[in-house]
Amino acid sequence: MTATLAIIGAGAFGTALACVVARRGADVTLLGRDAQKMAAIAETRRHPSLPDDAEIPQNVEPTADPARLAGARLILLAVPSQSLRAALRTYTPQVASNADLVVCAKGLEAGTGLLLSDVTKEETTGHAIAVLSGPAFARDIVHRLPTALTLACDDAQRAESIAQSLSGEMFRLYSSTDLAGVQIGGALKNVLAIACGIVEGRGLGDSARAALIARGLAELGRFAAAHGGKPETVAGLSGLGDLVLTATSHQSRNMRFGLALGRGEDPAMLLAPGKPLAEGAYTADIAAGIAARKTIVMPITAAVAAILRSELDVGRAIEALMTRPLTSETE
Amino acid sequence: MTATLAIIGAGAFGTALACVVARRGADVTLLGRDAQKMAAIAETRRHPSLPDDAEIPQNVEPTADPARLAGARLILLAVPSQSLRAALRTYTPQVASNADLVVCAKGLEAGTGLLLSDVTKEETTGHAIAVLSGPAFARDIVHRLPTALTLACDDAQRAESIAQSLSGEMFRLYSSTDLAGVQIGGALKNVLAIACGIVEGRGLGDSARAALIARGLAELGRFAAAHGGKPETVAGLSGLGDLVLTATSHQSRNMRFGLALGRGEDPAMLLAPGKPLAEGAYTADIAAGIAARKTIVMPITAAVAAILRSELDVGRAIEALMTRPLTSETE
Repeated sequence: MTATLAIIGAGAFGTALACVVARRGADVTLLGRDAQKMAAIAETRRHPSLPDDAEIPQNVEPTADPARLAGARLILLAVPSQSLRAALRTYTPQVASNADLVVCAKGLEAGTGLLLSDVTKEETTGHAIAVLSGPAFARDIVHRLPTALTLACDDAQRAESIAQSLSGEMFRLYSSTDLAGVQIGGALKNVLAIACGIVEGRGLGDSARAALIARGLAELGRFAAAHGGKPETVAGLSGLGDLVLTATSHQSRNMRFGLALGRGEDPAMLLAPGKPLAEGAYTADIAAGIAARKTIVMPITAAVAAILRSELDVGRAIEALMTRPLTSETE
Repeated sequence: MTATLAIIGAGAFGTALACVVARRGADVTLLGRDAQKMAAIAETRRHPSLPDDAEIPQNVEPTADPARLAGARLILLAVPSQSLRAALRTYTPQVASNADLVVCAKGLEAGTGLLLSDVTKEETTGHAIAVLSGPAFARDIVHRLPTALTLACDDAQRAESIAQSLSGEMFRLYSSTDLAGVQIGGALKNVLAIACGIVEGRGLGDSARAALIARGLAELGRFAAAHGGKPETVAGLSGLGDLVLTATSHQSRNMRFGLALGRGEDPAMLLAPGKPLAEGAYTADIAAGIAARKTIVMPITAAVAAILRSELDVGRAIEALMTRPLTSETE
């Protein structure tokens, strides 16, 4: 027997999701690449990136054997965004043709600029594709603290039923049919988190950060609209909620990356190979490129991308943003 | 000669606005009630609630003489929300009939539940009425740190021209025609700030606070729509921007009030006469009453109001919020 629910990707977030579903009584397959690591998780019922007091329930089966996916009717894809396509190519042969797929990564694919649901569509056939996004630290989930996320699928009924089957005690999923808006909120919030870090690192004050978040969300809304999404979606759990979590916590890599830029560190040095990856640095470049091609007004995103390419210094960027022609709030 | 621009209310925010406009070269009348205090400001060019390094420019005239309003064509009303009606009754006789009025207070009037623009409409005749709202600490304004706010007026052209005449270096106003939405964002964000304080005081984690902000804004959007405003307006500078500023800073009275509630202090004691006023406590009660009458779904606002009336304890409130039937994100 294999579980009807499986999670591909045994990082902190994937494992936290496994715990929340398992606590409701369902069997869960937790699939990772590293057989030794998965065996250790199975033996200790602990995950190296989760708090020690978070015990992984016995009905979670940590494994590195893709054959364990066979019985799953609902599969969560909790791998890093740039690894999604490779993971799909590796694992899809083991996946039942009637399984629903839920993308849990946040980002745009480098190179193609595609939404991750579109990457999934390209690599699979006939599956319903949903995305899970929103503000939740893995350790808050395993500690049973209240968390709420958005589950989006083109098909409203399927969005609701997947939301029902994943929600648990203190873990609440809201459904949405705006697949594009939810993903864009989750991906582009990392760019704004870098911008918030810059503002804080330069000592520009809390008022400036608050204005940046509000004006940044207006940009995300325009980007969502240009991709067939609804602008208001980015002011929901994915997008706004996510951004509040990231931009007010120094645990975020994107925020810390921005702080370093704001304090005057050299972008080229921060982006050098071997430095910790700030996902938003790549997303900024991809999104600024798309915005330029599609003429979407995104001055904050463009400024972050230009700073990262060392084409603009932070002081000039702020001056330019503050002296743009005055407009209405919706423009 | 009297200045063409006047500010009624010489608190920290009114004085900061006077400084920003005066720095552009315009003469500004700053009208306060207390003659002695105004004389001291005029002499020292300092305000007791602003940092010592913030010098008030010579072209600001601090005064307690209402006759100095006579020449003003643009008058900012920077008095506390519950004092607005009395201030209008006192000063309107001195105001030129063609002067535009800009409400800078945030709140709903106790007793009537009215928006402050409607209070102003009731107490005056023939003036254009605008509102200024958004995230800005007075000390950030006087320190010339970047700040952005929304200037709303029914008449788009007038909104733009007032925004132009008040914007200054590092002080950027966006125009809007959504008078109701902008005011509701500014007023009701204080209720969510109390809720954020409760969540933090009880140690519920950053994920919970982020979810609360996103779901709280959905409530504000519904309240705005029920008052003829646009739901998306509350995700702008007023509303969202304001809330980010308040909810991530322990300087806010509303936040501190919520923190005390979350730590288990007795609401009745916190609301006793003589305690510092948390504007959101009154707004919660007014808004929850309106929501109940108009059947606007506002579970967070209702929970805050019930906690303040000692009808619900914090633990039960959270349990109730997390176990509501699952819905779509837009409901």
